Amino acid sequence: MKTATIVGAGLVGSLWAVYLSKAGFKVKIYEKRPDIRTADISAGKSINLALSERGWKAFSTVGIADEIRKIAIPMYGRTMHDLEGNLTFQPYGKEGQAIYSVSRGGINAKMMEIAEKVGNAEIHCNEQCTDVDLENGIVYFENTITKAKSEVQSDLVFATDGAFSAVRYKGMQQLNRFNYEQRYIEDGYREILLPANADGSYKLEKNTLHIWPRGRFMLIALPNEDGSFTCTLFMPFEENKNSFENLKTRDQVDQFFKSTFPDFHELMPDVADTWEDHPLSSLAIVRCYPWVHGKVALMGDAAHATVPFYGQGMNCGFEDCSVMWELMQEHGDDWKKILDEYQISRKPNGDAVQDLSLDNYYVMRDFVGDPEFLLQKKFELRISELYPEKYLPLYSQVSFSHIPYAEAYKKGKEQDVFIKDIMAKNDISALFESGKIDGLIHEYYGDDN
Amino acid sequence: MKTATIVGAGLVGSLWAVYLSKAGFKVKIYEKRPDIRTADISAGKSINLALSERGWKAFSTVGIADEIRKIAIPMYGRTMHDLEGNLTFQPYGKEGQAIYSVSRGGINAKMMEIAEKVGNAEIHCNEQCTDVDLENGIVYFENTITKAKSEVQSDLVFATDGAFSAVRYKGMQQLNRFNYEQRYIEDGYREILLPANADGSYKLEKNTLHIWPRGRFMLIALPNEDGSFTCTLFMPFEENKNSFENLKTRDQVDQFFKSTFPDFHELMPDVADTWEDHPLSSLAIVRCYPWVHGKVALMGDAAHATVPFYGQGMNCGFEDCSVMWELMQEHGDDWKKILDEYQISRKPNGDAVQDLSLDNYYVMRDFVGDPEFLLQKKFELRISELYPEKYLPLYSQVSFSHIPYAEAYKKGKEQDVFIKDIMAKNDISALFESGKIDGLIHEYYGDDN
Repeated sequence: MKTATIVGAGLVGSLWAVYLSKAGFKVKIYEKRPDIRTADISAGKSINLALSERGWKAFSTVGIADEIRKIAIPMYGRTMHDLEGNLTFQPYGKEGQAIYSVSRGGINAKMMEIAEKVGNAEIHCNEQCTDVDLENGIVYFENTITKAKSEVQSDLVFATDGAFSAVRYKGMQQLNRFNYEQRYIEDGYREILLPANADGSYKLEKNTLHIWPRGRFMLIALPNEDGSFTCTLFMPFEENKNSFENLKTRDQVDQFFKSTFPDFHELMPDVADTWEDHPLSSLAIVRCYPWVHGKVALMGDAAHATVPFYGQGMNCGFEDCSVMWELMQEHGDDWKKILDEYQISRKPNGDAVQDLSLDNYYVMRDFVGDPEFLLQKKFELRISELYPEKYLPLYSQVSFSHIPYAEAYKKGKEQDVFIKDIMAKNDISALFESGKIDGLIHEYYGDDN
Repeated sequence: MKTATIVGAGLVGSLWAVYLSKAGFKVKIYEKRPDIRTADISAGKSINLALSERGWKAFSTVGIADEIRKIAIPMYGRTMHDLEGNLTFQPYGKEGQAIYSVSRGGINAKMMEIAEKVGNAEIHCNEQCTDVDLENGIVYFENTITKAKSEVQSDLVFATDGAFSAVRYKGMQQLNRFNYEQRYIEDGYREILLPANADGSYKLEKNTLHIWPRGRFMLIALPNEDGSFTCTLFMPFEENKNSFENLKTRDQVDQFFKSTFPDFHELMPDVADTWEDHPLSSLAIVRCYPWVHGKVALMGDAAHATVPFYGQGMNCGFEDCSVMWELMQEHGDDWKKILDEYQISRKPNGDAVQDLSLDNYYVMRDFVGDPEFLLQKKFELRISELYPEKYLPLYSQVSFSHIPYAEAYKKGKEQDVFIKDIMAKNDISALFESGKIDGLIHEYYGDDN
């Protein structure tokens, strides 16, 4: 029986175990942290995650989508909160289309359970990777509790150990001609838990992603199953009036929320008291290449970690599994070919998801509060409704399709130029009001064109 | 007495020891390699280095320029060799201005000697840095021969341990928010030693840098003291007709030199036999930030390694010493301030020297064979002769001035646009022939303008 070692029992590693098992591999997973299913990890960094189409496809292929659906909450659009507490809703896609809020801890525990039950994988926790022999597929571990050392050799090794992958650091980064970049953005984040009402109900509309866009910074909130929301404040660490270095005292925090997010402060008057419950954390993208050497391949964040502003980091990692699986169907047991095509075809998409994520930070913290931007999105959505074969908005390409990220990124730029040009030449707002907008769209997208 | 640890007894580390000693520090240097003064290192990677003004200034400040001048060979310009063996000479600067060829091994040995004699530094060789405590200024070493472990604590630690700095890897890279990039170019290099004639004389003109520019690749040759030339072939590793992957057999190498560098092949008909004497090596730039943390600062290649195409990697490292020294004069013992200003002021120049180096590869391998480019350089030199206060060509700014690299890079781009515009509007070549070129220059740069 073929054997595979997976380093990292996170989301991608657990899912990949199911795929490998389906392909006839005996799989062992090694995870440096304690078992997330039994350990107390409440105060970690856990930006809620947004599952979208690419993730669902990766689940469906191995028949586990229904299991995950039980813990996922649909969000049909963005709800923007302005300084006066006025709300504006912008749908993500067509009627019924949604992205799904899941808690990192919740989905990770579920995925590990599935890896064991469906994937027949052995999961070894508290095992820190200390070294790797790329050519021979040997990974060296030290148990973080017993300090016992061990080594595991297998036919293939998959590193799904995250943005700061030990396999990459100890292995790939020692290679000649290995390109590597870790780039932090100037902003950090801190989480806040907005609890449920006493009766367990939600304090904000449940099925939407809430945003308080404030130009250089923003607050967002995603729903949890228990009625609470996981909220995240993204802002500069320093060198700005509104920055984390200016939010040191209880009073500074309280005043900041009162004046900047007044409706949020009303819902959670004790926000300043919970300020220290979660750590101030940083955000980086990691680019590298090659992703494959000898018997080892990087997948997920270990290959292409991104900032969280498009909600695609996890989905992109799951899509790595789909892509690898398709190559396995094509090339059978020729793993040299599978891994080689995997990295060649996938690298531009890893880069693109990072570019998309960086761009979308500006969209979320700034443009979503801009009427002109919202009008453009409304216009694009209407074009897409009338001519679904001819026009798919960028957000939909990324979140509701399987178009490769690099292609979507390029196409999105072109569309943006084209739409802005139409908007400059026509009073779109008036056309919507007079009900004549469809006429204009037919002019541009009708069969004669 | 204040103490300092320098990790890396290369060029920058050895020079920096002299400066620190002058500032009253007791200095210990640790070097992972064997002592270059006694070990056999003939077959290493040792692109000859070109010393220019920034390097000389750093030597002069501590009074060691004369010692170095003894082993440096002036090169007054570039001599281009075309396919027919025709030569074209292009001066680097004004009459008498030169960059100086030194062998890496030669200058390194000399610098270590100076570090001991002038800097009173203790040099410990065969000591590999295994870890570092940035906050407390402790460096951990393992002797590569005896395997004995040791640790050294001092007031300050300077990492001059090169592009793949162990201090940076073990220390800085573990820090949150440390930005880091290692980017390899698609090309590699291989050295060839063109020996002296039997009587010890040079086979090529001595006081010039020889280039065989061939578009996508090039061969260069720099003089050594013993009559030989260190030659280097730069070309793509693969994916090109002319690439190292297509130079595997003796016959392929021989044919390649015969057809591509015929005059060189005549001088060295056995070039193919010596092909394996030196390894095929890769080329990268390394960018990172911050350069300072706790009691530790990165200098030279450890902070800003570059590709060798502007001959500025070493000079930039020596200038780090000059800059730090000036800050020491300004801020006395306030090392927090010195180190902070060092990294803030120096980082843009580290980036710029890399941008300049990457750009100059295209110049060397391609443009220096282009008559239009050579005409532009001739024109710029004449402007500079007539109006030295108003016009300094980019190459002179970089090699014969102390203008910060970032400023030179920006200024050079502006000048290039301006000069190309004048050349498009005037027949410069005809004006040179008719002796009317000065008239045109006065029009643009005379006092009325």
